[in-house]
Amino acid sequence: MESSQLKHQKKLTKAFMIEANNPDLKSWVEVPANSDFPIQNLPFGIFSINNASPRAGVAIGNFVLDLSVLSELGFFNQLELADNTVFHKHQLNDFMALGKPVWTAVRNRISELLRDDNPELRDNSDAKRQVLYPLQMVQMHLPVRVGDYTDFYSSIEHATNVGTMFRGKENALPANWLHLPIGYHGRASSIVVSGTPIHRPKGQTKADDADMPTYQPSRLLDFELEMAFIVGQSTQLGESISTKKAEEHIFGMVLFNDWSARDIQKWEYVPLGPFLGKSFASTISPWIVTMDALEPFRVDSPVQDPEVLPYLQYEGKKNFDIHLDVIIQPENGQEKVVCQSNFKYMYWNMAQQLAHHTVNGCNINVGDMCASGTISGKDENSYGSMLELTWRGSKPIAMPDGSERKFINDNDTVVVKGYCKKEGFARIGFGSASGKVFPAV
Amino acid sequence: MESSQLKHQKKLTKAFMIEANNPDLKSWVEVPANSDFPIQNLPFGIFSINNASPRAGVAIGNFVLDLSVLSELGFFNQLELADNTVFHKHQLNDFMALGKPVWTAVRNRISELLRDDNPELRDNSDAKRQVLYPLQMVQMHLPVRVGDYTDFYSSIEHATNVGTMFRGKENALPANWLHLPIGYHGRASSIVVSGTPIHRPKGQTKADDADMPTYQPSRLLDFELEMAFIVGQSTQLGESISTKKAEEHIFGMVLFNDWSARDIQKWEYVPLGPFLGKSFASTISPWIVTMDALEPFRVDSPVQDPEVLPYLQYEGKKNFDIHLDVIIQPENGQEKVVCQSNFKYMYWNMAQQLAHHTVNGCNINVGDMCASGTISGKDENSYGSMLELTWRGSKPIAMPDGSERKFINDNDTVVVKGYCKKEGFARIGFGSASGKVFPAV
Repeated sequence: MESSQLKHQKKLTKAFMIEANNPDLKSWVEVPANSDFPIQNLPFGIFSINNASPRAGVAIGNFVLDLSVLSELGFFNQLELADNTVFHKHQLNDFMALGKPVWTAVRNRISELLRDDNPELRDNSDAKRQVLYPLQMVQMHLPVRVGDYTDFYSSIEHATNVGTMFRGKENALPANWLHLPIGYHGRASSIVVSGTPIHRPKGQTKADDADMPTYQPSRLLDFELEMAFIVGQSTQLGESISTKKAEEHIFGMVLFNDWSARDIQKWEYVPLGPFLGKSFASTISPWIVTMDALEPFRVDSPVQDPEVLPYLQYEGKKNFDIHLDVIIQPENGQEKVVCQSNFKYMYWNMAQQLAHHTVNGCNINVGDMCASGTISGKDENSYGSMLELTWRGSKPIAMPDGSERKFINDNDTVVVKGYCKKEGFARIGFGSASGKVFPAV
Repeated sequence: MESSQLKHQKKLTKAFMIEANNPDLKSWVEVPANSDFPIQNLPFGIFSINNASPRAGVAIGNFVLDLSVLSELGFFNQLELADNTVFHKHQLNDFMALGKPVWTAVRNRISELLRDDNPELRDNSDAKRQVLYPLQMVQMHLPVRVGDYTDFYSSIEHATNVGTMFRGKENALPANWLHLPIGYHGRASSIVVSGTPIHRPKGQTKADDADMPTYQPSRLLDFELEMAFIVGQSTQLGESISTKKAEEHIFGMVLFNDWSARDIQKWEYVPLGPFLGKSFASTISPWIVTMDALEPFRVDSPVQDPEVLPYLQYEGKKNFDIHLDVIIQPENGQEKVVCQSNFKYMYWNMAQQLAHHTVNGCNINVGDMCASGTISGKDENSYGSMLELTWRGSKPIAMPDGSERKFINDNDTVVVKGYCKKEGFARIGFGSASGKVFPAV
């Protein structure tokens, strides 16, 4: 992009940043009360309809807005995008690669087009017919081509719970935990979009009292309530990102269920970390909520003591107040909310995670995904996994149909939901990340 | 590909398999004695020349054969490839995705074109001028777009050495080590092609006697002598690969230096495994040697005791006799071979690694890379890392210029070389994976 154009768009960004989040905005598209997708949200995703090619869309109320057709019809002409084909791609990577000023300018333009006082699209019934589809008619796809996927371990309550169970209360937190946001590389290929069924994984496990391992379907299948951010701006090998610049590299966030087979994980993870206990599937929500939309929900992070090294220090509110629910739906029974947590509990924030991730010069690419690690709070009902909620199965959860859950059963569906809510602001929702567990094949 | 065509190519494969490896074959391209790239090898890579677009090539002697131009000139017409643009791509992924019968058919056709008794290309000086370049004139690129990268830990000598150093001789091998090929997810974005300089990584380390960690350039920078195989055939999520079918998914192999910062790794790796101690860079050799070319060098693997679970059992010779050298070149001094090892020492073979990797249904994609883990042998000079060679720095290596090495110094170049050699067969070489260490930025 040319620098005069960049300047122009930066100006646009500034001017519209607050306007697009203005709670008084209303859309000519009907948005039900309590919708996850009011005009103040405008999350990006990839959808298809009637077996046509997948393309980029934005959610508004119960509808999806087709950005590829909007672009063809010239509604983005004034933005002078460097590449006009980005909304026709099967993933958002090429759009994201255009950079943050463009993400913001496009969101602002969509906001403008959807406002009830703007006749441009509202009164163009021919265009409207071509660009608006009911959400229930479309199929959602993985929104990005994931390069590398990193999983952090950034909730102090989760790390403490797991540590207490496996090493006792005195040694709960590893020695390094308070000094750096522990993370590890995860499997990118098996990240799937909400609605994709999961097969119970098979693998090696070993009972504590057994001499030899056995091969069988996992008996301790679990969810992990997480959120993930998506990298929208790359770095070169050798480059490090400061906490100050980190957020410029983040396009947005999704809900993330890091399915875990606890018995497989337990036997394999020493000394090199989790592998097959996790790599069989991770489920994400289809709509990427932009960092711009989350702006009003910034909150302070927990105080960090001991003080962290300078490269991990930061200024300002780098955490976000995002309510999170996990629901178990039995195949023929009533569902139950088993966990209510919040992203704001995170001890390490995303800016710190990216600063740490790149402090050694590791390069990041557009489409990389970084998950938070299980998000647990202080209350027992805020624990983000069955491992913690049932304390290794010792406190089963009673379901409405009289059955019990220590872990996840075959044919259960696990649904993660998330939303931001605050007096004086519109509700910003994430939709859901849902997956049904099929028996082992 | 249509089934009659597939059948045709399978027949071609069988017929030419032995022929292309025939040690009596000679090429009209001059091949120096002891070249890594005789006509029996024909490794695939991606190269560019004079700033033109990167494209696919095959190494022959001191030359590279341009497959994109060969294809344009019609030399592959008889193969009826499903996609004629695969050799024009910047990575080999689309070529590999055509499947193993095509890999073999293309290699056989190239072998045919290069034979001294075949005038097709030999006597076509116009075509020859367009498709042959001296290796020293071209720039090599990363040959594949890496999806996921997995690092195994499959040398029993390496695992025993490291375990002995950190946990004592009695607890050297983790309890699971003899039952499964331990592996973990690595960072794909920082895999670079031979010749790319490496910056000494910075990060957190903590001295054993210190209360708090510090931030500094790594003091214990190491190489790890590894090899990696490249996935050429994908699976679907939920699918597992048997040891019997595993090799059909492997396109070929490269040399792999898994650079490691031991001090960063030590402080960070509990409990989730290595992260920033490895993710700053991994160096691979540019030429992918096909499994077809390695056929003559199959050998038995070490006997596995205790017996492994049925899904890890296999038949036949699944290991390969590949000599491996590691050389340290000081900036202004004489180089020294510091390690001589062999891929055949691997306790777990590639078929077992793939069977294990997918036993839980984890899907693999074309371009995925699986590294062996450090390849150490029984002799002290066969240890595949400075950590082991100098036994944590306690036995420094004397360099020809009188200096010592406990680990790798700034401005040192580390070169990994590999080749197969056997009475009655042509030498099959891998070229080299080389990287110079620049000071921390």
